[in-house]
Amino acid sequence: MSDKKYVYFFGGNSTEGNASMRNLLGGKGSHLAEMANLSIPVPPGFTVTTEVCIEYYNNQQQYPNGVEEQIARQLANLEQEIGFLFGDEKQPLLLSVRSGARISMPGMMDTVLNLGLNDKTVEGLAKTVDERFAFDCYRRFINMFGDVVLGIEHKEFEKILDAKKEKLNITNDTELDAKALRDVAIQYKALYKEKTGADFPQDPHTQLQMAVNSVFDSWNNKRAITYRKINHIPDDWGTAVNVQCMVYGNMGENSGTGVAFTRNPATGERKFYGEYLMNAQGEDVVAGIRTPQSIETLKKEMPDIYGQLDGIKEQLEQHFKEMEDVEFTIQQNKLYMLQTRTGKRTAAAAVKIAVDMFNEGLINKEEALLKVDPEQLDQLLHPMIDPNEEVEAVAKGLPASPGAAVGKVVFTADQAEKEAKAGEKVILVRNETSPEDIGGMNAAQGILTVRGGMTSHAAVVARGMGKPCVAGCGAIRTNEDEGSFTVNGHTVHEGDRITLNGTTGEVILEPVKLITPDISGDMDIVLKWSDEVRKLKVRTNADTPKDSQVARDFGAQGIGLCRTEHMFFGEGRIPIVQEMILAETEEGRKEALKKLLPMQRGDFKEIFKVMKGYPVTIRLLDPPLHEFLPKYDELLEQHMELKNSGSSSKIKEIENLIKRVSYLHEFNPMMGHRGCRLGITYPEIYEMQVRAIFEAACELVKEGYTIVPEVMIPLVGHINEFKVTRDNAETTAQQVIKETGVKLDYLIGTMIELPRAAITADEIAQEAEFFSFGTNDLTQMTFGLSRDDAGKFLPYYVETGILKTDPFMAIDQNGVGELVKMGVEKGRSVKPNLKIGICGEHGGEPSSVIFCHNTGLDYVSCSPFRVPIARLAAAHAVLKKDE
Amino acid sequence: MSDKKYVYFFGGNSTEGNASMRNLLGGKGSHLAEMANLSIPVPPGFTVTTEVCIEYYNNQQQYPNGVEEQIARQLANLEQEIGFLFGDEKQPLLLSVRSGARISMPGMMDTVLNLGLNDKTVEGLAKTVDERFAFDCYRRFINMFGDVVLGIEHKEFEKILDAKKEKLNITNDTELDAKALRDVAIQYKALYKEKTGADFPQDPHTQLQMAVNSVFDSWNNKRAITYRKINHIPDDWGTAVNVQCMVYGNMGENSGTGVAFTRNPATGERKFYGEYLMNAQGEDVVAGIRTPQSIETLKKEMPDIYGQLDGIKEQLEQHFKEMEDVEFTIQQNKLYMLQTRTGKRTAAAAVKIAVDMFNEGLINKEEALLKVDPEQLDQLLHPMIDPNEEVEAVAKGLPASPGAAVGKVVFTADQAEKEAKAGEKVILVRNETSPEDIGGMNAAQGILTVRGGMTSHAAVVARGMGKPCVAGCGAIRTNEDEGSFTVNGHTVHEGDRITLNGTTGEVILEPVKLITPDISGDMDIVLKWSDEVRKLKVRTNADTPKDSQVARDFGAQGIGLCRTEHMFFGEGRIPIVQEMILAETEEGRKEALKKLLPMQRGDFKEIFKVMKGYPVTIRLLDPPLHEFLPKYDELLEQHMELKNSGSSSKIKEIENLIKRVSYLHEFNPMMGHRGCRLGITYPEIYEMQVRAIFEAACELVKEGYTIVPEVMIPLVGHINEFKVTRDNAETTAQQVIKETGVKLDYLIGTMIELPRAAITADEIAQEAEFFSFGTNDLTQMTFGLSRDDAGKFLPYYVETGILKTDPFMAIDQNGVGELVKMGVEKGRSVKPNLKIGICGEHGGEPSSVIFCHNTGLDYVSCSPFRVPIARLAAAHAVLKKDE
Repeated sequence: MSDKKYVYFFGGNSTEGNASMRNLLGGKGSHLAEMANLSIPVPPGFTVTTEVCIEYYNNQQQYPNGVEEQIARQLANLEQEIGFLFGDEKQPLLLSVRSGARISMPGMMDTVLNLGLNDKTVEGLAKTVDERFAFDCYRRFINMFGDVVLGIEHKEFEKILDAKKEKLNITNDTELDAKALRDVAIQYKALYKEKTGADFPQDPHTQLQMAVNSVFDSWNNKRAITYRKINHIPDDWGTAVNVQCMVYGNMGENSGTGVAFTRNPATGERKFYGEYLMNAQGEDVVAGIRTPQSIETLKKEMPDIYGQLDGIKEQLEQHFKEMEDVEFTIQQNKLYMLQTRTGKRTAAAAVKIAVDMFNEGLINKEEALLKVDPEQLDQLLHPMIDPNEEVEAVAKGLPASPGAAVGKVVFTADQAEKEAKAGEKVILVRNETSPEDIGGMNAAQGILTVRGGMTSHAAVVARGMGKPCVAGCGAIRTNEDEGSFTVNGHTVHEGDRITLNGTTGEVILEPVKLITPDISGDMDIVLKWSDEVRKLKVRTNADTPKDSQVARDFGAQGIGLCRTEHMFFGEGRIPIVQEMILAETEEGRKEALKKLLPMQRGDFKEIFKVMKGYPVTIRLLDPPLHEFLPKYDELLEQHMELKNSGSSSKIKEIENLIKRVSYLHEFNPMMGHRGCRLGITYPEIYEMQVRAIFEAACELVKEGYTIVPEVMIPLVGHINEFKVTRDNAETTAQQVIKETGVKLDYLIGTMIELPRAAITADEIAQEAEFFSFGTNDLTQMTFGLSRDDAGKFLPYYVETGILKTDPFMAIDQNGVGELVKMGVEKGRSVKPNLKIGICGEHGGEPSSVIFCHNTGLDYVSCSPFRVPIARLAAAHAVLKKDE
Repeated sequence: MSDKKYVYFFGGNSTEGNASMRNLLGGKGSHLAEMANLSIPVPPGFTVTTEVCIEYYNNQQQYPNGVEEQIARQLANLEQEIGFLFGDEKQPLLLSVRSGARISMPGMMDTVLNLGLNDKTVEGLAKTVDERFAFDCYRRFINMFGDVVLGIEHKEFEKILDAKKEKLNITNDTELDAKALRDVAIQYKALYKEKTGADFPQDPHTQLQMAVNSVFDSWNNKRAITYRKINHIPDDWGTAVNVQCMVYGNMGENSGTGVAFTRNPATGERKFYGEYLMNAQGEDVVAGIRTPQSIETLKKEMPDIYGQLDGIKEQLEQHFKEMEDVEFTIQQNKLYMLQTRTGKRTAAAAVKIAVDMFNEGLINKEEALLKVDPEQLDQLLHPMIDPNEEVEAVAKGLPASPGAAVGKVVFTADQAEKEAKAGEKVILVRNETSPEDIGGMNAAQGILTVRGGMTSHAAVVARGMGKPCVAGCGAIRTNEDEGSFTVNGHTVHEGDRITLNGTTGEVILEPVKLITPDISGDMDIVLKWSDEVRKLKVRTNADTPKDSQVARDFGAQGIGLCRTEHMFFGEGRIPIVQEMILAETEEGRKEALKKLLPMQRGDFKEIFKVMKGYPVTIRLLDPPLHEFLPKYDELLEQHMELKNSGSSSKIKEIENLIKRVSYLHEFNPMMGHRGCRLGITYPEIYEMQVRAIFEAACELVKEGYTIVPEVMIPLVGHINEFKVTRDNAETTAQQVIKETGVKLDYLIGTMIELPRAAITADEIAQEAEFFSFGTNDLTQMTFGLSRDDAGKFLPYYVETGILKTDPFMAIDQNGVGELVKMGVEKGRSVKPNLKIGICGEHGGEPSSVIFCHNTGLDYVSCSPFRVPIARLAAAHAVLKKDE
């Protein structure tokens, strides 16, 4: 038992760990050890392993046998290495104590500096170094220890410090002299006693034990538990504790402390980037009381130190093949490195760094690809708020469609279109949007809705259009009568200019400067590398020639989902569509459909042309018919108005409409008379659409194009539904081919979007020529979760960790994903080469793309603006699988 | 090849088949052979096997080698057996040709009699027997052959016959003399030529070949194909053809033909039951031109024949151990049996016959149980229309809840309650019902809705209440303003008396006499036998003490689903529930819940008392809150009215209500903010309910009752949802137990009603103490099918065979059933003894009960009125599994 190693030394020539021991030593500890191994100057110390933490919790908060002895032994080693003794009253060894889990975790105890000081050692330090310095350290230590270990609020200490400064009529901490700091330390101890009922601990070993325990205890504090739950970090990872010899940036004007990135984290430029403060300890840089200096200044002020630091920077990059984020301290002209870790960066920087490092020969293409987070790319594909602008959000909704937009508030789609025609930029604000609003949404710069989730109508359409959208912003109360909305105490009127940040979900009540980020050539390079690596094809969900063109420009290899209903909302068509719906006979419907036929044919021709050479999957009509009619409430109001005004001629018409709308009303339209159920009960609608597809295709084939249309039948739950609609489509297709005398290959397949379709995929695959997983609806049905209604509880679920992520954003692999797997396995068990794709919103979300790759899909299809993300994610899928 | 046997002889001592060869010889052929084996007088003949039919279709409508020869050889045998020759011009052998599949199938060719007659043989027959007889046979033959084999409409022949009778001024066919019949035969032949372009075939062998082909062809005619599709009869079963020597019931006054049942098919009484016609052929009995005589008369008229027939009856029952349905012919005082098959019977008869046959020692208990169709029992559990009444239905909806009801039409729940209080019997007619209508539904005799399917709110509630309901009767157009509805040209006003038949779905526009069938002691015997056999427990879905008592009387062994929300609609409660919903703060909600607590506690106490000794599963609140508020449209109207009337005091209240209703509005409430999602976002609601349950249980335990409450958490899709609500419930339960000082065992489990719950059942089983499959919702989600909206296409699906059955009636074993299996397997993989039940409507449907047994469930739970059905079906499950 006691021969298990629980404590690892680092520094000097006695380092026992290295970077590969991250799980055991934590991120900080393993990297300190690695730096020591590289002979980079690191203040020596030791790491108490994560295993101690785990056993501590498995054993009623008792250390396993031997830990205390090992700590004592390593502390002795440390004293020997440094030449000072811990608790020595003349030249005391002081320590920093820091937590260090595998990955950095907010909410855990962070840092206690200057540990080992007490009323006696502080006097020793005062004598051997400097009195002011010694008491500066002491008051810092009491503050940090009291705050971090005992939970006394930091602001209580600040009050004392501020009172002292006020009394002395000074503003900077550095102006406090030794006497003042000594007073402060005494008052701090009194505060400590007042708050804890105990004296400030004078025994350094007690201090150390309390600090170490406090790190372990913080592993299970509420914030840390919540964070782990949300981020699905196992509770049994545990944290390590790093105990390190103090170095002092506050030891006078030849001392200092700083943080730096080995490259510019905003732009990726290969240039040392950071800031520092002279005569300060770490927390001063963060606190922002004094303004830190740029690292450039250090080059002038301390060229030797800078040179040394620059050399270490190069060494770290060469070693870790990464852009690093470092902390350093200069103690009386001597440089120490306190931490190194992978640096966070913007998307632009990530792309540039990846390409640069490849060009520098530091990494290969695969490594370069893995340095760019696909999700992050999204930042580069939309206008965004100038990072230099200071903005204050008045409310936050869901980040439903990325990018930022500025415009005048309007409350109706009509108004949006009118203003846009007049050259105004507008933001369309709605409780929720419906297909009728599409014109207005298209005319607006951005869309803001009060209700609805990440895949509500507004969100889906906005993403498809590449328009910023903030959805489900529940803090807003619209008052359409008055043409205004209120939000957290503010009232915004029609015509007021606001800004939306669809990337963050923020709503800002003023116009803000936007920038269109420069998509450099590096992005293109990264995407081309992705294409070389990936196995999944990437298609797009596009319903218009314009969207199709955008998607092709972004590298889409075809259309995975062309929703024909969006075309029904095109200009001049809605009246014909309504005529079709209001006809109560088949003949009446056919009459109206005859008028729609050439329009749909035209649509398809244009899209086929743009997608020349690539497959186009066209989904037959999906939504319930009432979506194309006015809303019941609106009709009722109109009716009342007409009644009051006595105009009887239009009343009959409205009454008919009310009757029809009321007849078509559904309690749960998502599970209602839609998809192939329409195609079965009104076969003439699908017949028209299939005819339009094949007439378009045949005409283009005659013009020399190569077209392989893929007809997709939606909402199939039972093989017989597919058979009936497929047979009808087949008949029409053959008719057109015969009429035109053209030779044409085509496929007829189905969406797999109902659980039952996935469960019976083996039956369906016997007939269908391709599958496309409609994971939006599949998620809705599998969870029994209406995406339009989930706003009232789903955000809460994600916030509290009941769900790890919104299942409409990233595919729910345990549930919905199991059905996808089942569908693929059962489908391929019957047709081994069955072509299978995904056309839900998930097709553009990186973790879902990786899931699709691993599940053996042939392609993903996503919004045009997410095509680049999917291309990179698909490459990651290959590279991560090889890991 | 040619040594395969395709044709089997029966009759005399040369019978080659028997009853066990049903698949090869068809039902009719195998039973004719069996009778011959029993030395029962059967006209000899032969059966062409179903294999010939199958090979005929596999081989481009060509017979396999050897068939023609075998037919010829067997025909020769037949000639030898009879002593006449086929086609002989003096004493011709005549034949009947009939189809005979494994099971009787409407739409297939039925019968051609008197085959072998032509212009010459008819003259031989005229000479050897009688001219009138000969030409009667001939004209019948031409008619049947023309109709059945060539498709000439029967009424064309009738026209000729009628013209002849009119000309001769007679009314009965029997009055036509030989000359007249000879004329008719000539005219028939002319008609035949006119319609087919060919002469009536004179060659008897051609006639035979054409008739046999026609049987085979009819296997694939449209009606037969449709019938097979709907009834899922494999296409490759094929049909047999029976060629049999004619016997003549039309050979004078000592000849006749009849049909009979070996027991009374309406009552089950052990008494020969049937009717016959003298001097007639089979089709005359059916045609109804002459009134047949009761078999009792035969006993007097022809005692010898009757005695012989009665003996055969006994022999058949002893042999087949069944109530048989027979056809017979008397030819000149000689008795022939033409067919025997299992007799159809009413539910009452089935029960009586089963018990009687057991008492007679004919069958054992297991055989007796299998003689009663569980579904059929339903007839005996509800009032029904007197079978002696002649009723005409004006429209047909879905048979949503069985039984019949008569009452005055009312259009609102309020009106229903008012009239019922005044002692009136009413039928509540609604477009659809909602939970607010429950009082009115309870007050009504029956419910009629325009919209909604078999598991719409109206249907589910009505079945629970045991009240007749016709749902989704789309032919009805209500006009609430006028207080009337129209249906197929009739207008019905409020106060008019109508009749509903919930067993058939029929609506009758007049009051009809109803009877409450006598549930004899035999039923009880059958159910007790079932209890001895079955493994599944049978519980009930009941929300009130009254329903619980009904269910116990029907043999329920506990409550599988007690829906707490129905209690929220109890008298005086809705205002408090609304107060709770309208409160915008937790405190406000708690205030209202405090008032509900004693009411719910009282509900639970009563139910626990009734169910003393049996488990009670209580589901926490499930429906979305807006179901308890008035409808948006209604509020809007009220608002308009108030506005117009200028009454401003109530306007504010309505406006608040409108705001709240509008806020709570959901697009797809079925998949919205309901079930445990409510329990998670408003934990105080579940807390009140759990407290009510445990306070009730503890109080009763103190009074000496044994209570084991089972708390059921609805709509769990993710294990974390269960954990959160379970932990809260656990806390409250422990609190109450502590407060009361009572020792109490209890279970906390969950519904499995979302596909995701079934898919992740292994995770959920780690925490849940029982599962109950909510197959109503599971079916909705798996199919993506809203039960309230499916009325527009689901009936069409079932009609056209796209779906075999309404999946809300019988569990969809391939789809939903797969999820149930998955849930059971995954759940038990973690907890081998996990208690698992089903509480969807399917729990009372026989095929679903059998599925539940085979899937390893512990119990089914169903409406009180279906408990006896489930008991019997559960016994069938055991007996059929043993098969």
